[in-house]
Amino acid sequence: MRSEIICVGTELLLGKANTNVSFLSEKLAHIGLKVGLATTVNDDRAEMIEVLKNALGRSQLLIITGGLGPTFDDITRETVAEVLGKKLVFDRPTFQSVAAFFAKRNMEMLKSHEKQALLIESATAIPNEMGTAPGQIIFLETNKEIAVETIVLLPGPPTEMQPMMTKTVLPLLKEKYGTGITKVERIHTIGISESRVEEAIKEIVEREYKLEGGSLCFSLIASPGMVDIVISGSGKNELLSENLIRKTKNEIKEKLGAAVYGENDVTLSQVLGQLLMKKRMTIGVAESCTGGLVSKMITDVAGSSLYFKGGITAYSNTVKQTILGIKKEDLEKEGAVSSSVALSMAKNIRTQLRTHIGLGITGIAGPGGGTVAKPVGLVYTAIVTDNYEKCFQYMFADNRQGVREKAALFALEAVRRMLLE
Amino acid sequence: MRSEIICVGTELLLGKANTNVSFLSEKLAHIGLKVGLATTVNDDRAEMIEVLKNALGRSQLLIITGGLGPTFDDITRETVAEVLGKKLVFDRPTFQSVAAFFAKRNMEMLKSHEKQALLIESATAIPNEMGTAPGQIIFLETNKEIAVETIVLLPGPPTEMQPMMTKTVLPLLKEKYGTGITKVERIHTIGISESRVEEAIKEIVEREYKLEGGSLCFSLIASPGMVDIVISGSGKNELLSENLIRKTKNEIKEKLGAAVYGENDVTLSQVLGQLLMKKRMTIGVAESCTGGLVSKMITDVAGSSLYFKGGITAYSNTVKQTILGIKKEDLEKEGAVSSSVALSMAKNIRTQLRTHIGLGITGIAGPGGGTVAKPVGLVYTAIVTDNYEKCFQYMFADNRQGVREKAALFALEAVRRMLLE
Repeated sequence: MRSEIICVGTELLLGKANTNVSFLSEKLAHIGLKVGLATTVNDDRAEMIEVLKNALGRSQLLIITGGLGPTFDDITRETVAEVLGKKLVFDRPTFQSVAAFFAKRNMEMLKSHEKQALLIESATAIPNEMGTAPGQIIFLETNKEIAVETIVLLPGPPTEMQPMMTKTVLPLLKEKYGTGITKVERIHTIGISESRVEEAIKEIVEREYKLEGGSLCFSLIASPGMVDIVISGSGKNELLSENLIRKTKNEIKEKLGAAVYGENDVTLSQVLGQLLMKKRMTIGVAESCTGGLVSKMITDVAGSSLYFKGGITAYSNTVKQTILGIKKEDLEKEGAVSSSVALSMAKNIRTQLRTHIGLGITGIAGPGGGTVAKPVGLVYTAIVTDNYEKCFQYMFADNRQGVREKAALFALEAVRRMLLE
Repeated sequence: MRSEIICVGTELLLGKANTNVSFLSEKLAHIGLKVGLATTVNDDRAEMIEVLKNALGRSQLLIITGGLGPTFDDITRETVAEVLGKKLVFDRPTFQSVAAFFAKRNMEMLKSHEKQALLIESATAIPNEMGTAPGQIIFLETNKEIAVETIVLLPGPPTEMQPMMTKTVLPLLKEKYGTGITKVERIHTIGISESRVEEAIKEIVEREYKLEGGSLCFSLIASPGMVDIVISGSGKNELLSENLIRKTKNEIKEKLGAAVYGENDVTLSQVLGQLLMKKRMTIGVAESCTGGLVSKMITDVAGSSLYFKGGITAYSNTVKQTILGIKKEDLEKEGAVSSSVALSMAKNIRTQLRTHIGLGITGIAGPGGGTVAKPVGLVYTAIVTDNYEKCFQYMFADNRQGVREKAALFALEAVRRMLLE
């Protein structure tokens, strides 16, 4: 069983970021389908035909994203139909749901949108709640030339593609192909380097695992400040496989200790939120170099209003004084980027917002503003509660965006660690 | 001239984000090289051989990333050599620079690292300042089966790959292939749908352009709330091509009017910052549903402290009252999500931070908290200055993240439009 992904879009070969391959491949892995190849191709008929023909001959499942929109360069529908030797047929229910999408939003439906009601012969439309382009799923009869059994067409924008995949396509594929004997578990760590993680779990990774008709695989996925350990396992006996994967996961978690903040789909902000709710504590944030990012990350979580009261982004020194009440002497003596100012920020936001926890972050994100004594990347993070008061100093070697991101992540992490104590 | 990218790495087909294609394709476009295809392949010898053979037969430039590390699953070097029928040779200078990398960091060089000193016959090593795996560049003689003239091997991690590409590979490729006669121009718009953009510029896009030995291409790139128009052109006569591209770009900009906020690498936050500096105005932000994102976006720009004084994220109603001074009656009568509260937020943040402009945003990001009268996606944005006072109502059909992102973008856009008046 081989799956293949084709992403269509000239923009993707002209600098636009593409997150569809990572999203789709992860979701497919969860139901035991491994992606053999992913190709990105221009909105070009001839190039698409070559890529499609190759894929048709070698894979059983083919997922194609992009090129389903209403504009001149959206040619996926036509080109797939052409390669399959099938017609495009006007689908009235699809037309009506596209029309309803526009009507609901008081938007005018253009002539070009009618194209979106064309389905490839024998295809079933996949509803799109977030946009106008429906997806399509086609089941084929295989023969000497055609190995593909299932073709799925999805729109390119992740906001439309992702819910369609999760709600409609994945359950269908799971029923058809997902034998339930593959499982993927993901462990999230923060503040520990990839080589340290590798060293810590080396023995577990190199051990020999006996799973009838299957195996256990490990991979490390590093992102700024974080390392994920992915365990994927398959085997004929579902229960045995799952037990072994769970056992191994727990062993790894034990080796890595508090650096592990969560598993699978959970984010650091969510873990922090759960801890705060469990301890019935509220938090307020005073931030400078992160410019609102810490508050933004905390409020990424739905329901965060239960523990997040608010934040102050004190970017200028005047605001640090007038709104946050930082003393002028402190700013002048130690400088705005100092542990004493970070501590005052944390204390004062706590008092002002009447929260259990006050978090203060000040630093130099760069590219300008660094000195020999206080270089770009220097960040102070302070946490204050009724019975806790601590300031952490960080030195991040990164660009402006990287320093800001890491500073925000490690601030959340510092609060998480404090709550674990 | 066709370029092709191959990304090697099982992790990339198991959920890890891949930014190498977008980075490489954009850099290549800048020197006039268009990427025809990008493929992601597992660390699997047989699969890699198939992909490599296909590429060798159809492209002139082949860039391969990943699989150059020291571990057992790094097999790019061996596999490329095998497909080319070339040997791997131990390169002493490369070995010495790998050894020096470890020595400099007081790290122990492992036996497995010696593999990284193996070069494919006739290859030249590309120095890697950020890691141990050097890149390789190979020039081939083409024949009936081999279309590829240049193969570049680069490490997978962006922090290593990107500087190697920019410093060493790009200048080499520019000298060899970059005739300087291709130009890419990008126009950014906001608040106008993809189909409206298409309609507005249809005549320009469909016109026939005569460029000796070249052509003019258009593509539309949509992201939440925004549409970019990319014009890429090539031709034998550099001056003529550039003039035509510029002329066409200006025509498009005229058609789209104020929806165009910038060109090429510029961001909305940067454009807003430039306008604020030009008008010598400062801004303060009071935000609720966006939870700090507006402040974060404004401070993404280096030097934003010149016009951004600070912000208050008033997530809870208590904080709206105590810190922002919103009247309890207003909150009770109209509700926290209302134009009157948005206006009070803008007015009060302006007074408190003593800025020229006060920006207030309140809304329902969801997934919970919506009602029939005030559904998820409803957002009020108010702007207040000495002689301007306006509140905008938006209805965003999106998930929590999407509502927050669009609310923040359209808030910045509303300020930009106000400054243009």
